[in-house]
Amino acid sequence: MALRHHFPAMNPMPDACADRLEVLLAELRRFVRERDWEQFHDPKNLAMAIASEAGELLAEYRWVENRASDLYSEADDHRNRIAAEIGDVGIALLLLCDRVGLDLVEAMRAKLAANAVKYPVDKSRGKPEAPGGGTKATL
Amino acid sequence: MALRHHFPAMNPMPDACADRLEVLLAELRRFVRERDWEQFHDPKNLAMAIASEAGELLAEYRWVENRASDLYSEADDHRNRIAAEIGDVGIALLLLCDRVGLDLVEAMRAKLAANAVKYPVDKSRGKPEAPGGGTKATL
Amino acid sequence: MALRHHFPAMNPMPDACADRLEVLLAELRRFVRERDWEQFHDPKNLAMAIASEAGELLAEYRWVENRASDLYSEADDHRNRIAAEIGDVGIALLLLCDRVGLDLVEAMRAKLAANAVKYPVDKSRGKPEAPGGGTKATL
Amino acid sequence: MALRHHFPAMNPMPDACADRLEVLLAELRRFVRERDWEQFHDPKNLAMAIASEAGELLAEYRWVENRASDLYSEADDHRNRIAAEIGDVGIALLLLCDRVGLDLVEAMRAKLAANAVKYPVDKSRGKPEAPGGGTKATL
Repeated sequence: MALRHHFPAMNPMPDACADRLEVLLAELRRFVRERDWEQFHDPKNLAMAIASEAGELLAEYRWVENRASDLYSEADDHRNRIAAEIGDVGIALLLLCDRVGLDLVEAMRAKLAANAVKYPVDKSRGKPEAPGGGTKATL
Repeated sequence: MALRHHFPAMNPMPDACADRLEVLLAELRRFVRERDWEQFHDPKNLAMAIASEAGELLAEYRWVENRASDLYSEADDHRNRIAAEIGDVGIALLLLCDRVGLDLVEAMRAKLAANAVKYPVDKSRGKPEAPGGGTKATL
Repeated sequence: MALRHHFPAMNPMPDACADRLEVLLAELRRFVRERDWEQFHDPKNLAMAIASEAGELLAEYRWVENRASDLYSEADDHRNRIAAEIGDVGIALLLLCDRVGLDLVEAMRAKLAANAVKYPVDKSRGKPEAPGGGTKATL
Repeated sequence: MALRHHFPAMNPMPDACADRLEVLLAELRRFVRERDWEQFHDPKNLAMAIASEAGELLAEYRWVENRASDLYSEADDHRNRIAAEIGDVGIALLLLCDRVGLDLVEAMRAKLAANAVKYPVDKSRGKPEAPGGGTKATL
């Protein structure tokens, strides 16, 4: 199957100006290839990995009150676990992007532009829901 | 509450060498601030947002077979929806990182380094589980 | 806060005809009350618990192919873990129902009736999506 | 593939004492069979369905504060949506149990017994975490 990869092959010695995410992606690809794990990384399995890692991140905040969750996140042991779970979600997300040939930053940028239309400033200020009554505003 | 932000304040006109993720983060912060949405974006709520967006991404592949999921991802309408869900997960993840003062790329890099220790190449090749028998390998 | 509980107070000695789910619910309530955990079990936290437990169940099948997942589920160690995760999801779901005053069986019955309308037999046979083109069929 | 089904074939006319969950399961089986949907309902796909439905339930409470989530759940339109999402999670969970030959109530009962050992009353009162320091208490 020919996958469309938008990222060019990486130079192994990134220049000073290289995008940090692309440098990481190159390392991630090598990690996976060395272990022959591409066989497990079809889009369906990676979507599952994202969701299960997101579930572990969620578990971290499960019994913490909203108002306590900023402070909770600062304690060193919590912080380390939260960083590890964020890393897991990010890695799985990056792997999915790579597999289906999407650029993560571009996908975020496009969604942000769509959200700017969906949530006009004057109708959305201080309200987390879409003006039309939708209940699932994203950010 | 003093949040630790690792990212410096962004110049609104990014120079040619600016990190794409940081440029996006600056736009994202402005988007949120204009709508006065910081009040909803405590770490607990953002962890929920990540997981619920991950659930929507998951729904996309719910009835697709593993072996069909690469091809499925290429059809234009699927691709657009998948890109939108990836964008949602990424945005929520970036917002959480920003709120708790973590750098997403650094969190991924640290986790990748930990995984390299946990999954030695010679013991992990072709096997998606940790050598010791764990069942929840990450990538 | 006055919660609406649809379930009557349970007789500690269930009669032969008692509903198994209601007997379990009575035990569950006692378990929670003895540990003074009602304070953590607001609907938001319980929804998080359901999703994070669902994420653990998901992790179990993350790298298993569709076609292998029936057989995978039969191995004793897998079966035990799957049963434990199913138990976790079920318990959290039952606790949420109890907290918000909903009957789980009634909620499922109502949704099944709605699905029967949404997915007419003649238009849905062999197709997992709603006739109108929706992509998120439920079952 | 021989699946182990613990539930006997249901009599279409349940007697007065029939378990409500088993009556519903019989209806659910017929619903699925009429639409020829068993082919989509392997354990992997059903685990995905549970998690994505749990994500939708989660979305409902995403921007609601802990302390407001009881009252939030009582408004009629919220209540209807929450009931529908609970129904979805429950149905998918019941389908998975049926597919892998597990009894949902028995799985919950076994997990509750395990939790009673893991969280002794005197060491767990008022604390949502396991005495040994685990961070992922279930209920």
